[in-house]
Amino acid sequence: MAVKLLLKEIRAVLPDGDGVQLSRCDIGVEGGGVAFVGQAPPEFAPDKVIDGSKRLVMPGLINAHTHAYMTLFRNRADDLPFRAWLFDRILPMEDRLRPGDSYWGAMLACCEMLRSGTTCYNDMPIFSPENARAALDSGMRAVIGRGLVGEGYDDPGGLRRLGEAEAEIAEYRGCGEGRLRFMLAPHAPYTCAPAYLRRVIETARRLGVGIHTHLGESRGEIAGLKEQYQQTPFEYMEAAGLFALPTVAAHCVYMTENDMAIAARHGVSVATNPVSNLKLANGVAPVPKMLKAGINVALGTDGAASNNSLNMLRELGYLCLLHKGWNEDPESLPAARGIFIATMGGAKALGLADQVGSIEPGKRADLTILNLEQSHWYPHSDLLGALCYGAQGGEVETVLVNGEILLENGSFTKLDEERVRYEAQRVSDRVCGG
Amino acid sequence: MAVKLLLKEIRAVLPDGDGVQLSRCDIGVEGGGVAFVGQAPPEFAPDKVIDGSKRLVMPGLINAHTHAYMTLFRNRADDLPFRAWLFDRILPMEDRLRPGDSYWGAMLACCEMLRSGTTCYNDMPIFSPENARAALDSGMRAVIGRGLVGEGYDDPGGLRRLGEAEAEIAEYRGCGEGRLRFMLAPHAPYTCAPAYLRRVIETARRLGVGIHTHLGESRGEIAGLKEQYQQTPFEYMEAAGLFALPTVAAHCVYMTENDMAIAARHGVSVATNPVSNLKLANGVAPVPKMLKAGINVALGTDGAASNNSLNMLRELGYLCLLHKGWNEDPESLPAARGIFIATMGGAKALGLADQVGSIEPGKRADLTILNLEQSHWYPHSDLLGALCYGAQGGEVETVLVNGEILLENGSFTKLDEERVRYEAQRVSDRVCGG
Repeated sequence: MAVKLLLKEIRAVLPDGDGVQLSRCDIGVEGGGVAFVGQAPPEFAPDKVIDGSKRLVMPGLINAHTHAYMTLFRNRADDLPFRAWLFDRILPMEDRLRPGDSYWGAMLACCEMLRSGTTCYNDMPIFSPENARAALDSGMRAVIGRGLVGEGYDDPGGLRRLGEAEAEIAEYRGCGEGRLRFMLAPHAPYTCAPAYLRRVIETARRLGVGIHTHLGESRGEIAGLKEQYQQTPFEYMEAAGLFALPTVAAHCVYMTENDMAIAARHGVSVATNPVSNLKLANGVAPVPKMLKAGINVALGTDGAASNNSLNMLRELGYLCLLHKGWNEDPESLPAARGIFIATMGGAKALGLADQVGSIEPGKRADLTILNLEQSHWYPHSDLLGALCYGAQGGEVETVLVNGEILLENGSFTKLDEERVRYEAQRVSDRVCGG
Repeated sequence: MAVKLLLKEIRAVLPDGDGVQLSRCDIGVEGGGVAFVGQAPPEFAPDKVIDGSKRLVMPGLINAHTHAYMTLFRNRADDLPFRAWLFDRILPMEDRLRPGDSYWGAMLACCEMLRSGTTCYNDMPIFSPENARAALDSGMRAVIGRGLVGEGYDDPGGLRRLGEAEAEIAEYRGCGEGRLRFMLAPHAPYTCAPAYLRRVIETARRLGVGIHTHLGESRGEIAGLKEQYQQTPFEYMEAAGLFALPTVAAHCVYMTENDMAIAARHGVSVATNPVSNLKLANGVAPVPKMLKAGINVALGTDGAASNNSLNMLRELGYLCLLHKGWNEDPESLPAARGIFIATMGGAKALGLADQVGSIEPGKRADLTILNLEQSHWYPHSDLLGALCYGAQGGEVETVLVNGEILLENGSFTKLDEERVRYEAQRVSDRVCGG
């Protein structure tokens, strides 16, 4: 239920160009949206008031690339080379998943994401519609894109997957008062043949949905595509016509200048995943260069099998710290820009910029409230720096999505977290062999 | 007061060569030390029992390089080039510090470190003896090395600082039932002339203490030393005779093969500071190569002005993730090795390997107990992976130093955390100009 709420004299992370700024103000929530930012009008009669004196409110974090169900595989395949990780560990575990299993993985992901301040996520599952159902049941905002792989225009497996995606979209589109959106998710250049991509593009156009894909994640992908097609992943997807549709490209560790020009020209958003790229030893994406090229950059955790956390506050720290060191430039990605990327960057990438990503009157009330009474936040000074370089996740106290309080003072209002943990443990023990 | 405590059937991080392993067992604490690991003897009658079923115990983390007082400057100087950071922001703030101020900064650091599972830290302050007093009052184990800079053998400033260090050592050595140790801390090659180093070395030898210094932190340092002395920082310090004493060298971002041979030959320990090196845009230290060269590596956060967190669990994640991505080698630093570095590596560096760094009968009971009932730790599987790649800090529930419970179920038993925050805020607002 959407609440009528007043945040009284709270430090708020507000929009400021391609960054954010802090301001102390009142914020009103009503009818699921932000009613005002500034001073509460005298006639505003809230059902609930949150004292802002020791708190900070920010736009809910947007996880722009994840595979929520993969919490089931968390900590089950660490410190391995990519091929051993994928073929010896992850794929055999995925093969043992039964219908209904990934629901619990996704629900666990939602518990974790809400507890660390994420209100919206861009999901690429391999089962449907159970992941859409998890998003719906969790109360979170989500964009679901069932992963698609296919070898040709009429590849039966590829068609089956596409059919499942289409059925799911027909059933769940617009559910949860608009919280649920959909994309099609052709997995990657090396798993989707050009003819299959043609089929996916036709379907996406017919359904009026965007695209979520992996691009340029590893050196192996670059080399393979170069050998087979004499193209980079971006050139390959541009040639296939993918970028005529709104596209979120995850990873993009390897991009040429020309790739960046392609992305900028077509308005392709990049969802960067710094931790996953480190953990799987793929490298570091050229994010500061992307920003200079005018590309919209969003932030994602990737799945828990390659991270192993879905904590976007932690990911934000990696984003801002890593590029400073990598580029030997302390100004390459300031805190305010990082916070923008983790919120508004995601909203833009997901086509939700008019609804979420910033705290503004008229937008939906997807809000994350942090308790600042923590020694690691003291002394209170530049709290954007604290958010970016010091936040752990546990500071998150209260979270609203669509004006509904999902987490209140550290307790879930509708999710049965104990049940979710129990079921996820049960499934994980079975598919991972104990 | 040292407690007689039983940890009942708890998952424990136990020693395993140059790594660690997990085992479920009973652990007894008595007389400030670890009495047994395995099954509790029937005659053991504890005053207190902690149920281990949903908990994990690890050796207290050892922060092998920090400047505890610098919490006062936290988030006051972000996203700046090194020289602007140091000369325009940090030094003017340090100049405004009055005696007694840095005590509160160090106490705040202790609150933060204990809350994130650190039991011992290697401190380089610039005021004395107030930082020794803070360590004493906090209940933590600490090695204090007042920072020393000097231009010659008889440089008055250098002599004053050395005199202060010596007086502090005379007064506090062995205090707190052996919790307090000391080193001398010649700041860096570029702030300590060879003649002054000679004086420091003579003094350290006379006092029987080791050395804590910064080495090879930035390209600027390398270039400056090369121009002035045609030496690397390691060559410079070896020539000065520093390495005849037990030495902890912080940072070491830039090391040649020969530097590594020097460090290995003299048993110099490196305290690596991955986050600080990223934040100040210095780069990434060649830690996997150091390990191959047989160098003992420890982990530190550096000060809060360049991190901005003293959370060693977070630092551990950066340690293990960063080198995988940097070296494009997912096996370059596995979780178990990282945990060893963050515990036993620190103990070795500080000359405390016979006392702390691992959970073994006869060692002091410096223990960190985590509560595993957290969604981001589920499903429970490889918990070393969870510790390394997923821990946030807030899981830390109970912490013992020298067998004394300092943090119990998230509450401090002797530290007045609210007072500490208040005083640190007051001092910080004054020295940082509000």
